[in-house]
Amino acid sequence: MTSRVQHDRMANAIRFLSMDAVEKANSGHPGLPMGCADIATVLFTRFLKFDAKAPHWADRDRFILSAGHGSMLLYSLLYLTGYEDMTIDQIKNFRQVGSRTAGHPEYGHAAGIETTTGPLGQGLANSVGFALGERIMNAAFGNDLVNHYTYVLAGDGCLMEGVSQEAIALAGHLKLNKLIVFWDNNNISIDGPVSLADNTDQVARFQASGWNASHIDGTDPEAIAYAIEAARHSDKPTMIACKTTIGFGAPTKAGTNKAHGSPLGAEEIAGARKFFNWESPPFEVPGDILDAWRAVGTSGAKARADWEGRLAKADATLKGEFERRLAGKLPGNFDAVISEYKKKLSADKPKVATRKSSEMALEVINGAVPETIGGSADLTGSNNTKTSQTKNITSDDYGQRYVHYGIREHGMAAAINGLTLHGGLIAYGGTFLCFSDYARPSMRLASLMGIRSIFVMTHDSIGLGEDGPTHQPVEHLAALRAIPNHNVFRPADAVETAECWQLALKSEKTPSTLALTRQNLPTVRTEFSEQNLSASGAYELAAANGEAAVTIFATGSEVEVALGARELLEKHGHPTRVVSVPCFELFEQQSEDYRRKTIGNAGVKVAIEAGVRQGWDHIIGTDGIFIGMTGFGASGSIEQLYPHFGITAEAAAKAVEARLHSK
Amino acid sequence: MTSRVQHDRMANAIRFLSMDAVEKANSGHPGLPMGCADIATVLFTRFLKFDAKAPHWADRDRFILSAGHGSMLLYSLLYLTGYEDMTIDQIKNFRQVGSRTAGHPEYGHAAGIETTTGPLGQGLANSVGFALGERIMNAAFGNDLVNHYTYVLAGDGCLMEGVSQEAIALAGHLKLNKLIVFWDNNNISIDGPVSLADNTDQVARFQASGWNASHIDGTDPEAIAYAIEAARHSDKPTMIACKTTIGFGAPTKAGTNKAHGSPLGAEEIAGARKFFNWESPPFEVPGDILDAWRAVGTSGAKARADWEGRLAKADATLKGEFERRLAGKLPGNFDAVISEYKKKLSADKPKVATRKSSEMALEVINGAVPETIGGSADLTGSNNTKTSQTKNITSDDYGQRYVHYGIREHGMAAAINGLTLHGGLIAYGGTFLCFSDYARPSMRLASLMGIRSIFVMTHDSIGLGEDGPTHQPVEHLAALRAIPNHNVFRPADAVETAECWQLALKSEKTPSTLALTRQNLPTVRTEFSEQNLSASGAYELAAANGEAAVTIFATGSEVEVALGARELLEKHGHPTRVVSVPCFELFEQQSEDYRRKTIGNAGVKVAIEAGVRQGWDHIIGTDGIFIGMTGFGASGSIEQLYPHFGITAEAAAKAVEARLHSK
Repeated sequence: MTSRVQHDRMANAIRFLSMDAVEKANSGHPGLPMGCADIATVLFTRFLKFDAKAPHWADRDRFILSAGHGSMLLYSLLYLTGYEDMTIDQIKNFRQVGSRTAGHPEYGHAAGIETTTGPLGQGLANSVGFALGERIMNAAFGNDLVNHYTYVLAGDGCLMEGVSQEAIALAGHLKLNKLIVFWDNNNISIDGPVSLADNTDQVARFQASGWNASHIDGTDPEAIAYAIEAARHSDKPTMIACKTTIGFGAPTKAGTNKAHGSPLGAEEIAGARKFFNWESPPFEVPGDILDAWRAVGTSGAKARADWEGRLAKADATLKGEFERRLAGKLPGNFDAVISEYKKKLSADKPKVATRKSSEMALEVINGAVPETIGGSADLTGSNNTKTSQTKNITSDDYGQRYVHYGIREHGMAAAINGLTLHGGLIAYGGTFLCFSDYARPSMRLASLMGIRSIFVMTHDSIGLGEDGPTHQPVEHLAALRAIPNHNVFRPADAVETAECWQLALKSEKTPSTLALTRQNLPTVRTEFSEQNLSASGAYELAAANGEAAVTIFATGSEVEVALGARELLEKHGHPTRVVSVPCFELFEQQSEDYRRKTIGNAGVKVAIEAGVRQGWDHIIGTDGIFIGMTGFGASGSIEQLYPHFGITAEAAAKAVEARLHSK
Repeated sequence: MTSRVQHDRMANAIRFLSMDAVEKANSGHPGLPMGCADIATVLFTRFLKFDAKAPHWADRDRFILSAGHGSMLLYSLLYLTGYEDMTIDQIKNFRQVGSRTAGHPEYGHAAGIETTTGPLGQGLANSVGFALGERIMNAAFGNDLVNHYTYVLAGDGCLMEGVSQEAIALAGHLKLNKLIVFWDNNNISIDGPVSLADNTDQVARFQASGWNASHIDGTDPEAIAYAIEAARHSDKPTMIACKTTIGFGAPTKAGTNKAHGSPLGAEEIAGARKFFNWESPPFEVPGDILDAWRAVGTSGAKARADWEGRLAKADATLKGEFERRLAGKLPGNFDAVISEYKKKLSADKPKVATRKSSEMALEVINGAVPETIGGSADLTGSNNTKTSQTKNITSDDYGQRYVHYGIREHGMAAAINGLTLHGGLIAYGGTFLCFSDYARPSMRLASLMGIRSIFVMTHDSIGLGEDGPTHQPVEHLAALRAIPNHNVFRPADAVETAECWQLALKSEKTPSTLALTRQNLPTVRTEFSEQNLSASGAYELAAANGEAAVTIFATGSEVEVALGARELLEKHGHPTRVVSVPCFELFEQQSEDYRRKTIGNAGVKVAIEAGVRQGWDHIIGTDGIFIGMTGFGASGSIEQLYPHFGITAEAAAKAVEARLHSK
């Protein structure tokens, strides 16, 4: 055990690296690292199971800095403990373009950054997925291979964000007792004292959701250690409310919002040097202290080696499966299974809603891919997210594959990210497309991180009918397509749905959203194709009889409408082709040649989609005809609504003919 | 006081109208109205201050059905109490196109619908704004004119949504003691028992945020009345956890999720008729019961008349101001004040960030318009939302004009909607544009309702610098523009900022978002114009010297870049005009002629915006040149980032010249 003096010096190394980096960058947040250095030092020196030389060790404890603005705390720890890619130069290049040390921790920038944080509450909400993932993997692979803790450092902002409530209620419900959250209870937010906006008794709040929670002095190493020790033996998740001082050690700014988000300035830092009796120049850590930290960084090496020994000795099948899953690779027969299923669909030609097609595809996928974890934000029967293989995960049985996330779209999406980031699992979860708005901050982070989270969004248009405009997405396809690195799939039938699911599962660096109908749709892909046609994003579904005068582009439920319009137009002597566009993003990635050919040269270009026009001009041009929505929907039956909003084959054909005649 | 028998029969009228309407529509949610009929009956018959013949009476109590899927509860009450536009035919046309009785309550469809609900948690979060609005107006106009309660009926879903935590924490902090929430504690959600996903002790949770909370039998009229009476004399907001049975009275479906969201079917309804001994045919309410309800509907007539008497006798200035504010009309000198301010700006030519321009505009506006209520989600100093006139609203002093909303973007947006809907106030609130994602569900509802909520979104691009991609919006302008009926303003300088604020304040039926920079921008509108040029959405800011070969469209901070590119191109002999596009939505509303003229016929069209391309093709065409972002941003200084992502005058000019040479 480290002496108090040693502890203090080790903690101060974090403090000064943080101050120095923020000062040099002339930008950043010194307050949190200074206030929380004691917590981090106790956690890393006495508890955290990790090996800085093997940062991806599957059974490491996870440390998640939910208060991501305090990124220098994490970067300092990674440097001090000897993570190879976190050099002192990286620390000196804090917040510069191209550095690993971005303003907020960015997943993928450096080892040891378990998730991207910064948008408040996200890390805490991810952690529910991490901790649940650990339990699920533990149930599948046993204590020998999976047995670790998830530690989170959260700030006042994390706890004020609503997503935190969704997260803590879910964690409490699932009794994720290996989840341990430190709350940096420093009473300061950006505007000033937290009391300007909040008087919540956070300990009581967490307790109300089934957590252990208690107050400690967050600057007392023994109190911190005692609390962690107790938390590790609890049957509930634990929140430790750590009383700290933001910017601790800064002579005039400590304990104020001035220490939060700006460099302290030379004078304050000089004062802090005196206060802590710290004589090293900027970015230099005294040799003995660096040695001590480096020893911490490798202190887990034996545990890691032991674990590797256990893995090596494990049953070969179990070992193979564990390694396959951790590598994120699908079972070898995956493509064959999908291909066979597609063949059957093209023969059977089911007329079902794509939400049902999705369930059918999932029935096949969940049978072939044991690592999928399904769920829904309390719309299981509507999202069709549950299959025969996915029974409920409960606090008594983590060895199952379905999560009832409750009415918590945001918490669900964040937990899905956490499950995905944990490794070994492929997580998907459902809600109505309209409520993607609730989940959006986490969906964006999945895109930014480049991870395989999958979002199942049913009831994807006015086609949901009577629930009305509050539940009818009109702008959501456009809004989701606007997010970089996010594949938005809108399949037209059961075959495309299978293809889109195949793509989603194989998309390791891009999250996917599947937009699915409530209403039944015919099979339009009646001819079997081995190739995944949806993979090109858009493809010609029906050719024109002769040189095309008209091309109609459509997605999802409106492909049927497009085919109807084509029939009318062909009948009237206007050769018309139909292009199905299941995924804008993948189409955009095709060669210019393929794009040009697929868009074609027809004199009239039409798009049909029961959403807003935004985004479609890129395909049909500004003079293209758009058949879709121009405002919000309405409450009524689907039979009323499509004609009411003019989204019919007849309306499309009429608009085309008017255009043809005006030429 | 009504006898128990009378109470039961009155409550049953709600139950049967609800069952009948859902059955006839073959769609809807009978479970809540049946379970909560007792609560509603006690509230309306004994407490709610309202006059069905004067539904817009400013001092009425508000009743907000946060669990909006139970819309038939509200529609039944409105019909029974005699609201003129809620006829029995409307009830019979439940969920049909064109009816007032949409699937979920839609603000504006019928009197008595105080806010649009359905997306869960929104009504509860709006109610904080309603209750705060009441206190603010009370502080301004006194007990004689403003003194009413806000009652909310919320379901399990409302309480599971994270936004509920933001709402209750804020309400508790502000001690909104005239806010009274009934929780329909029926233990059932769509997937089944609430225990599938939640074990939160809701009473303890509310208490932790400074509420009174207690459990009652939600079917016992006296218990309900007692709890309301106690709540009305509390110094805190109150949550009454009402134990109910979903679908109460349905013989086999009561108490199960089968009663939640589908028609009960003839057999169950027949069973319920027996259970309640209810002999009237569908849609018929026994005469004595209808009479009793109608009497309730006019029981507030005297109170209303007394209030009108007090208003008539009030000080003429106070009365005039009260009436002006309630009518939502701005002070008569508003336009003149803005015009004068613009004149000064064009002369002074300040070089400031548009967030600062916004503060300067607000300093003028808040001085001229006493009903503005400002705020920020803990980014006051960054959003520049506070002016000399707006001191903090606290639980000790509601007579001020600034709300520290805490780190609660979603709760803030919902509260802004509530403040706006309450009447008499114009509310705005700030956060970073990136975190509009957190607030989006409420921003969408402002658009759907068509109300004057104003969202101040600063740090509107990579220009925010070092905080990095988690904080840098790239898709948010597009995503917000996708929402129907939402004006997204991105002003280029202090003059446009003043104009956009003027438009936002005058936009009574469309909410506004102002996207504002962190970084300084020069004044580009150096020539004073009386006319609000931003009102047309886009306008020629700089003409070409000669017939334009190039038109550059830009918004906000990139207008400066566009002007720089123009200078380079003109120097190279390419006549170039620049069009500033502060608001896509308003531009779309201009005449085809104006649009055509403004877009012009230049051979090369360019758009410059530090966001994604989506939406711009509509102006520049598919072959237009787009200078902007193609993916997420990065952490670095603004001086690094703009060149890094190729958003510079030089890059734009180079791209144009390459195009000109290839022609």
